[in-house]
Amino acid sequence: MVTAGTLLYEGKAKRVFATDDASVVKVSYKDDATAFNGLKKGQIIGKGAINNQLTNLLFAYLGENGIKTHLLEQLSERETLVRKVDIVPIEVVVRNIAAGSFSKRLGVAEGEELPYPLVEFYYKNDELGDPLITDEHALILGLATRAELTELRNQAIKIDRLLQQRFLASGLILVDFKLEFGRTSEGEIILADEISPDTCRLWDSETRKKLDKDRFRQDLGGVEDAYQEVFARLTSLREGQSE
Amino acid sequence: MVTAGTLLYEGKAKRVFATDDASVVKVSYKDDATAFNGLKKGQIIGKGAINNQLTNLLFAYLGENGIKTHLLEQLSERETLVRKVDIVPIEVVVRNIAAGSFSKRLGVAEGEELPYPLVEFYYKNDELGDPLITDEHALILGLATRAELTELRNQAIKIDRLLQQRFLASGLILVDFKLEFGRTSEGEIILADEISPDTCRLWDSETRKKLDKDRFRQDLGGVEDAYQEVFARLTSLREGQSE
Repeated sequence: MVTAGTLLYEGKAKRVFATDDASVVKVSYKDDATAFNGLKKGQIIGKGAINNQLTNLLFAYLGENGIKTHLLEQLSERETLVRKVDIVPIEVVVRNIAAGSFSKRLGVAEGEELPYPLVEFYYKNDELGDPLITDEHALILGLATRAELTELRNQAIKIDRLLQQRFLASGLILVDFKLEFGRTSEGEIILADEISPDTCRLWDSETRKKLDKDRFRQDLGGVEDAYQEVFARLTSLREGQSE
Repeated sequence: MVTAGTLLYEGKAKRVFATDDASVVKVSYKDDATAFNGLKKGQIIGKGAINNQLTNLLFAYLGENGIKTHLLEQLSERETLVRKVDIVPIEVVVRNIAAGSFSKRLGVAEGEELPYPLVEFYYKNDELGDPLITDEHALILGLATRAELTELRNQAIKIDRLLQQRFLASGLILVDFKLEFGRTSEGEIILADEISPDTCRLWDSETRKKLDKDRFRQDLGGVEDAYQEVFARLTSLREGQSE
């Protein structure tokens, strides 16, 4: 049996620890930042605390709106208890506006609005650089069943609609974002990982200023300020809403 | 009006000329060889003549089996009259066995048999390096309609089945291949471009020796011999069949 506190997994931005309950793990968010498949490394001071709290705020909001997530209980600024799941090795990306690798690979100018939300699947594999895959690739690689791919796509579209509304109410445009899902011991697919300026492209809805990890990727400066700005906007609105 | 003989287009391996008939063009095959999106360049002596005649032989075979192609009439060893079409800017790749970019991108060992023929779409765009695309990308980029994508996929699967039989009868395994299709003035989608050791991976069915452009890409030597071997095998069988 795994002892409570044992490090089960260390990723680029989070550590996952065992707890007394085999069906529950503790996630601890780091300030470490990486980009371009680990080629660029750095720290964004305060990022761990912000991303933990933002993720929980957004997962709670999605949960209230019918999306099942792994969230159980926030323990501290940086630590959260979540349901233990087997992560589906597919990164699900939703794009509302052209940017990043989509723009670069397909020659579409950054900022161009897509006619409808685009869902893309990437094979979650650091060694291979998380390549784009088609549904057939996912099936042939045994990453998911056809029914699961449909479920991932449907969930992603629902989540996109909910998140766009939530962010826009805080003056933020949700350009694109990455989701990860996990299988529970009962085989159900639920939302896992995080939703934060590390995993979303967020632009100010008036100035279109970038308020996300692109400031780190592209050396735009003001990285910490951007994360704090997103945090402040989302939490102040939340307090406003609960009045 | 375009004068007969005017060069309409020059690609890496072919030139296309106008004819007296606006609905007909003349294709002339070159010996030039390129790989890795043009980074590697060379010549394969006799390739143009072989690829022209092989393509016509295979297009005629496909035509006899219900596949519509642009083939009209072979003029000489290197030259053929074909119907003028607007090329659909999607390279359609069919894979029966893992190899090439599929193996590299997804970490699947070369030579592993796929559970069923895999159809992939690539955006035909030299500047972007012909990136892999999903159906949604093709739709958003306006490269084809959803009905056309279904048509491309169905045609590709039928052609794969026919070509596998034809090659196997000549002692060749069809590992994978690339097709291009064109729209006629009536909006019909028909097979265009070529089918040759430039566009197919072909292995000897007993020794698995590579008999295609991979010999050029990978500096394996015996490039000309491989093209001639494929030509000899396919034409000798053809004569045998017509007895």
